Amino acid sequence: MLAGDLARELEGRLDGEDREITAVAPLETAGIGDLSYLSAEKYSGLMETTGAGTVLVDEGFEGETAASLIRVSDPYASLRQSLILLYPPEAVEPGIQPTALIHPSVALGENLSIGPYTIIDAEVTIGDGTVIGASVTIGREVRIGSNCVIHPGVVIYRQSLLGDRVELLANAVIGSDGFGHSREEGIYLKIPQVGRVVLEDDVLVGACSTIDRATFGETRVEAGTKIDNLVMVAHNSVIGPNTAIAAQTGMAGSTIVGGEVQIGGQVGLAGHLKVGDRAVLAAKSGVISDIPEDAYYFGYPARPQKEWMTMLAGLRRLPDLRRQVRELERRLAELEDQVE
Amino acid sequence: MLAGDLARELEGRLDGEDREITAVAPLETAGIGDLSYLSAEKYSGLMETTGAGTVLVDEGFEGETAASLIRVSDPYASLRQSLILLYPPEAVEPGIQPTALIHPSVALGENLSIGPYTIIDAEVTIGDGTVIGASVTIGREVRIGSNCVIHPGVVIYRQSLLGDRVELLANAVIGSDGFGHSREEGIYLKIPQVGRVVLEDDVLVGACSTIDRATFGETRVEAGTKIDNLVMVAHNSVIGPNTAIAAQTGMAGSTIVGGEVQIGGQVGLAGHLKVGDRAVLAAKSGVISDIPEDAYYFGYPARPQKEWMTMLAGLRRLPDLRRQVRELERRLAELEDQVE
Amino acid sequence: MLAGDLARELEGRLDGEDREITAVAPLETAGIGDLSYLSAEKYSGLMETTGAGTVLVDEGFEGETAASLIRVSDPYASLRQSLILLYPPEAVEPGIQPTALIHPSVALGENLSIGPYTIIDAEVTIGDGTVIGASVTIGREVRIGSNCVIHPGVVIYRQSLLGDRVELLANAVIGSDGFGHSREEGIYLKIPQVGRVVLEDDVLVGACSTIDRATFGETRVEAGTKIDNLVMVAHNSVIGPNTAIAAQTGMAGSTIVGGEVQIGGQVGLAGHLKVGDRAVLAAKSGVISDIPEDAYYFGYPARPQKEWMTMLAGLRRLPDLRRQVRELERRLAELEDQVE
Repeated sequence: MLAGDLARELEGRLDGEDREITAVAPLETAGIGDLSYLSAEKYSGLMETTGAGTVLVDEGFEGETAASLIRVSDPYASLRQSLILLYPPEAVEPGIQPTALIHPSVALGENLSIGPYTIIDAEVTIGDGTVIGASVTIGREVRIGSNCVIHPGVVIYRQSLLGDRVELLANAVIGSDGFGHSREEGIYLKIPQVGRVVLEDDVLVGACSTIDRATFGETRVEAGTKIDNLVMVAHNSVIGPNTAIAAQTGMAGSTIVGGEVQIGGQVGLAGHLKVGDRAVLAAKSGVISDIPEDAYYFGYPARPQKEWMTMLAGLRRLPDLRRQVRELERRLAELEDQVE
Repeated sequence: MLAGDLARELEGRLDGEDREITAVAPLETAGIGDLSYLSAEKYSGLMETTGAGTVLVDEGFEGETAASLIRVSDPYASLRQSLILLYPPEAVEPGIQPTALIHPSVALGENLSIGPYTIIDAEVTIGDGTVIGASVTIGREVRIGSNCVIHPGVVIYRQSLLGDRVELLANAVIGSDGFGHSREEGIYLKIPQVGRVVLEDDVLVGACSTIDRATFGETRVEAGTKIDNLVMVAHNSVIGPNTAIAAQTGMAGSTIVGGEVQIGGQVGLAGHLKVGDRAVLAAKSGVISDIPEDAYYFGYPARPQKEWMTMLAGLRRLPDLRRQVRELERRLAELEDQVE
Repeated sequence: MLAGDLARELEGRLDGEDREITAVAPLETAGIGDLSYLSAEKYSGLMETTGAGTVLVDEGFEGETAASLIRVSDPYASLRQSLILLYPPEAVEPGIQPTALIHPSVALGENLSIGPYTIIDAEVTIGDGTVIGASVTIGREVRIGSNCVIHPGVVIYRQSLLGDRVELLANAVIGSDGFGHSREEGIYLKIPQVGRVVLEDDVLVGACSTIDRATFGETRVEAGTKIDNLVMVAHNSVIGPNTAIAAQTGMAGSTIVGGEVQIGGQVGLAGHLKVGDRAVLAAKSGVISDIPEDAYYFGYPARPQKEWMTMLAGLRRLPDLRRQVRELERRLAELEDQVE
């Protein structure tokens, strides 16, 4: 593909030689045939040294470089388009592998692909164009929409409900029993977990993440929400639309997270609390009370980010404060002597 | 089922109309045919607005509501019984799927169920009534008791020993090699891990949790202990009976946890330390020294909860303290001038 | 095996009776036929009470004990050798199970073992002596070196590249898509993840750990690095040689970790930062900026360990400081009255 043709596709402007592009590579390692991109102002120093033939940059970029530039309004969005153009996704051959064990009561859509050693239990329905990998286990009465991608090793428990274009990465577990016990005379007795999991359209769940079914009612992840690897969503949690949750975050039971929320990695959320729409929770935060809309919280217990930064700065200057107090004490004692 | 019949089963008292109950639902979404329950005093406001036909409440409940009440001494325990009555667990058909690969030396009990594509290696013994899901891998010389439930995708390594009524959720890993290396001239050399894992009666292990075998000797989880999803139990750890461990908690090697301990989510425990019986570790705590019996610890490094709360309160008032010190300095300087 | 013969193998010195050794056990539970070892000075009290027949100790050990001693220069390294001698690893029978589904274009080395229900896609190459367990899924164009061990339930995505002697524990996921989205009008659109994962020689990846493929370019783990269970390595991260990473640690995208680094459990590393060679990161640290070589960091935000310890000590003495300030205020007020 020529840089000029790509610029046209991206509705951008080519600035420099019209080079052939064969691959995408980072600024640090790219060669003359590679497309690269400048992700943030602070990396612009790399533009002087990069060997990349062509680089996606912001319209206003002004640095020195030997690379041809494609100037666009949103370089990251343009990177996405470029990757789709340069690496067209391999079409998965529709077809059902002979070793897939599919209960006769299952209702299958068209143009499905079902991998080897996958097991689909009774009364399941699967929509058109969905791709199910190898060694997947799908329990009875699960409903899966169209154009979903279920990767190898995934387990979907009975009665889970998946919308369209849902993607589950390898070894994720959807609909396992919630962690609910009543404690009677020191002994834990399991509460039957009879609810289900609902993953709405365009939800992504990462590798080895676990989303527990509700005790009763639903655990629900709303449309467009993206969940990274090794995340735990406990029973009866509800996560709003277009929220992003980074790896190794966990939420306890009955947590209600709003829409367009951004949650960093390794965050913990206690049960029975609410996180408002568009809130941002910094990585490793521990949330033990409600978070207002649009807030930026940090730390454990999570507080507004500014407040924690003030506290941490104070903590760092604590030795100074101690010194000040000792000095005051010395001067006061001296003055007391004088006055006497 | 009629509310009056349920009240009798629960040894509770029906207060209101004797309604038909067909399902269990949360107070917020329940309808006239649903049973709901009031989990804590602080949610009693929901009793005024709920559409639930019947609600399980504490004997002394006094709020306003249109719902019929079933008054019981322990609403959560009664919820458990109600769920069992209203959603009787589906009986699993005993039987061994033809695609299960079972070594001829395996000793199987009666009324077993073994799922498709499950692999059971030499010299394994499995007790009566145990249910093993699809695509499970069981190594040689594993012993599994009666009435266990092993969910799909679980891997149980060689020589692991499971008691009766043990439940392992999907994709859990039992008996993988401990993380032990001797470092010789900067190179890590693996220490052979020749011990085993013992899970006693009534142990639960959550989805994608990993319990490593001992280097030598045993990693042991004692009877009745419940472990949530994505938990890490390292080699040679011992966990006492009737302890509960929430999701994403990890314990390093040779940690000794007592009985009836409660450990929150995302807690980390360093190796070679002891946690006393009935201790409570708040979520996200980092434990680096022994914890006494009955203690309530918090934070990192974990300290008695009160101590941390005092420290955090002090931290929050640090700007005030700094202001106070500045004011003292001003007054002292003034006084010094005066005295001179 | 006789203690004297073992001492000779270890190039150590037997001090006491030449007893028969049949197993290895901890000091606390060992009997007369067991070999045990003293891991650290602080446990030397156990030497007086142990029932172990023979114990590996440091050359200079001087405590009281009834056990025979094998004095060696590095007891832990000698323990490793002893375990290999006393528990010779079972030879895995080479052979390919008839239920393994292997694409005809796959290039297999010699003396391979491939387990049942394992699936190997097109254009894969696998070196001599590699052992692949049950129910493993290997995507197209994956290259696996010699003498690797791939445990049951592992998923290796397309184009991943594994060196020699790589070991992947059960249910680990290698090469899943990175968590990369461009956000356009509030909607997350997935960035195609077209890079790959490279695991160099002698890398270990623990159970249920996930190593994401690069967006483009590589996610790379260099030779000899050992990764524990439930660890997350995000897209485009690079980890140097002979580094050790404990369980439940996570690193965000494009993190560069040096060689011979030691990272504790539950550590979080933000994206686009560098950790210098031989740095040590204490468990649960949260790293949000570059870490110099040879540094010992702790806490969140991670700081040099000494600095945090000073801050925490100051925090603990904060109530004293408040008392001191109140007392100063009292004395100053008194003095002001006097002066007036």
